[in-house]
Amino acid sequence: MQKSLKIAVVGSGLVGSLLAIYLKKAGHTVHVFDRSPDIRNMVFSGRSINLAMSDRGWKAVDAVGIGNEIRSIAIPMDKRAIHVDSKMNFQPYGKDGESIYSIGRGTLNRKMIDLAEAAGAEFFFEQRIWDITLSTATLHIGETERGEWTDLKYDIVFGADGAFSRIRHRMQRQSMFNYSQEFLPTGYKELHIPANADGTHKLDKNSFHIWPRGNYMLIALPNLDGSFTCTLFMPFEGENSFESLPDQESVERFFEKKFPDSIDIIPNLTADFFRNPTSTLVTMKCYPWTFEDKVALIGDACHAIVPFYGQGMNVGFEDITVLSGLMEKYGDDWTTIFEEYQELRKPNADAIAELSWRNFREMSSSVADEKFLLQKKIEKWFSEKHPDKWLPLYSRVTFSHRPYSEALALGDGQNAIMQEVMSLPDIEEIWNSPEVEKLMLQLLDKSTF
Amino acid sequence: MQKSLKIAVVGSGLVGSLLAIYLKKAGHTVHVFDRSPDIRNMVFSGRSINLAMSDRGWKAVDAVGIGNEIRSIAIPMDKRAIHVDSKMNFQPYGKDGESIYSIGRGTLNRKMIDLAEAAGAEFFFEQRIWDITLSTATLHIGETERGEWTDLKYDIVFGADGAFSRIRHRMQRQSMFNYSQEFLPTGYKELHIPANADGTHKLDKNSFHIWPRGNYMLIALPNLDGSFTCTLFMPFEGENSFESLPDQESVERFFEKKFPDSIDIIPNLTADFFRNPTSTLVTMKCYPWTFEDKVALIGDACHAIVPFYGQGMNVGFEDITVLSGLMEKYGDDWTTIFEEYQELRKPNADAIAELSWRNFREMSSSVADEKFLLQKKIEKWFSEKHPDKWLPLYSRVTFSHRPYSEALALGDGQNAIMQEVMSLPDIEEIWNSPEVEKLMLQLLDKSTF
Repeated sequence: MQKSLKIAVVGSGLVGSLLAIYLKKAGHTVHVFDRSPDIRNMVFSGRSINLAMSDRGWKAVDAVGIGNEIRSIAIPMDKRAIHVDSKMNFQPYGKDGESIYSIGRGTLNRKMIDLAEAAGAEFFFEQRIWDITLSTATLHIGETERGEWTDLKYDIVFGADGAFSRIRHRMQRQSMFNYSQEFLPTGYKELHIPANADGTHKLDKNSFHIWPRGNYMLIALPNLDGSFTCTLFMPFEGENSFESLPDQESVERFFEKKFPDSIDIIPNLTADFFRNPTSTLVTMKCYPWTFEDKVALIGDACHAIVPFYGQGMNVGFEDITVLSGLMEKYGDDWTTIFEEYQELRKPNADAIAELSWRNFREMSSSVADEKFLLQKKIEKWFSEKHPDKWLPLYSRVTFSHRPYSEALALGDGQNAIMQEVMSLPDIEEIWNSPEVEKLMLQLLDKSTF
Repeated sequence: MQKSLKIAVVGSGLVGSLLAIYLKKAGHTVHVFDRSPDIRNMVFSGRSINLAMSDRGWKAVDAVGIGNEIRSIAIPMDKRAIHVDSKMNFQPYGKDGESIYSIGRGTLNRKMIDLAEAAGAEFFFEQRIWDITLSTATLHIGETERGEWTDLKYDIVFGADGAFSRIRHRMQRQSMFNYSQEFLPTGYKELHIPANADGTHKLDKNSFHIWPRGNYMLIALPNLDGSFTCTLFMPFEGENSFESLPDQESVERFFEKKFPDSIDIIPNLTADFFRNPTSTLVTMKCYPWTFEDKVALIGDACHAIVPFYGQGMNVGFEDITVLSGLMEKYGDDWTTIFEEYQELRKPNADAIAELSWRNFREMSSSVADEKFLLQKKIEKWFSEKHPDKWLPLYSRVTFSHRPYSEALALGDGQNAIMQEVMSLPDIEEIWNSPEVEKLMLQLLDKSTF
């Protein structure tokens, strides 16, 4: 029987709430703090990207018996719907209808807090944690950063307080703490496709809709109420950029020209465009993630990634799956639990950060690149001929529980092979020839991934 | 005539003091703040690495007429003295007796503050700057971080407050601020070779002494008083590491075995070893370096590098040379001065960070690598035959004012050529053959660096 501890979780987001459920089930007293008001009493919108829950996320919620509650607010998407030249084509995500699931961030977060409270976790909102004394797991809380603070001592503190974590902020000041944050020159803005009058969706509801345009793109993910949450990704500066769209007229002209089939379905385009903020995208890496047996970071607080692989929430939930396994394995030995947790998770967090960044690069540069499209065509052709030998990277990341680091190695190996294939003379003509097939089989035989 | 401004420089180190001299000469009121006591009233030792001033550093001090003052406290080193197997061999640094100059950090810093005061800058020691309001260039100063603060408003604030800069700390909290800090697994410790009884040096005084041992090494740089400042670089953990030397006996045995010719000349080995701290080595990068026309970072505050190219102070002094040139070019237009300053300097700061890190890797891994030694031998042979075609990278970095980014490109180009050369069959036999010479000339013809 594990010793019951007094544990604080800083941050009531998705990872903080789910972690609270796990810690309660393990028999601990759990207090969750958040500097924001209770999201259940707020209108949450304007700067969100809909979540895409996939296998890693489902595993974490199913293991504590709340998967079906969450399925009830999720919409399966079994394909991409690519909008080009006012036409649309579908690309299935996997085989046998494998799907990712669209969930509104606000909807899911409210549900998770309800479930965590039902499990016995206590939530404290509008409570500002300004600092932490790591060696004693003591939180320092107060109205303002420079005003009076109260000390709250715990046995363990988890920092689940996101990319700009205050808990990490204190850890950063230690010697030997490695840290990096790097912003993309691209930002994003939320837009909205409302439901039809009869409550149905204006676009196919079981698709992840994408309008790829090179260095900018529009996406739309379905909501339960018939609407879609849209996100416009675009550089801050340059030719097609947020800076280049300073007023209603320029925004309208831009959408008419670039996304003509979106005009009729985004009725409040300019109002939304100028009301909703332009948000930034950051990759944050750090190490270590833990301090003795007292403090641990989890989720975005220790590995914020860009959203282009749809794995941000899934990697955070997988952190919890791994941590929970270690809690079962090592009981009260939190020093070992935290040590193994960070050692196991760090390479995988780095791997999905890299894969997500590569997807951004790929989407930004490759949509109109003939050579890139040919490469994708060859990979698809070969994968269909030899499904046992060429697992699509997307499937390994999304529909699998194998470590992200393996997926990255798989991607590197496949890239190396494709580089040789693409350098063949006349590859445009012979791309689906027995010669290419044979070469790829030979290269696969020699490869180690 | 430039408008006279009220300017604060945070940090009274080498870069802060020299910048103060430049700003005074440009006609401004200059206040220099430091959280430490006046270094001129302190014993400064125990965690220092002697400085190696080279051409970029000299240019910056000569331009304000203080070069000769500093030459009077510097010792030229025209060669490396490599200590291996209790033997020593010399490697000249350049041609025609080109030298780098050993200067004690404390000695130089005291001199620089004297010179800055003589130029009219005012120094305020033991004044703790806790925060800054960037938009108004207002410093917040007080006894403690959580106590009462006083506001000090300036026209411009320079953050010359080193790798852990408080001024940068505020800039880091802005959106879109890119930042990374990465610690080496290797640390360092200061040791001491005293002068002979007659005041002479125990080793050749015009040499940079190195005891290379793969992943650890000892260095010694001469001081004016006949002593040498030694630095032991070594991993924190592992076989030959600080962790593996917990007591007097282990330290003595280690030095007897690994540095036998140092035993007689480091009399206070174990006392120094356990009194002096083990310090860390960090590479810090960030961007942007400036905020509007109000605040700029300079020196280690915006680009801390590891010391393995001897360029840390030199790159900081070159920042000042560049800034000063822009002040002359753009007069009162500080927005443009700061914008061009960061755009010009950032690629060069990144380049010398990369070169310094590569030197660490090279020294750590390559000393005993036959292939590496052969490569160096071929480069030397070729460079002597074709001095106009193969400038040693060290010379381009150390004895030149060409941008560091050019040196990095030169190094990359030379590496690419050497990779082809080293992959020749039987390179061990034919390394100085006409065939190799011809190949290298051909590859150079095709290269673009």
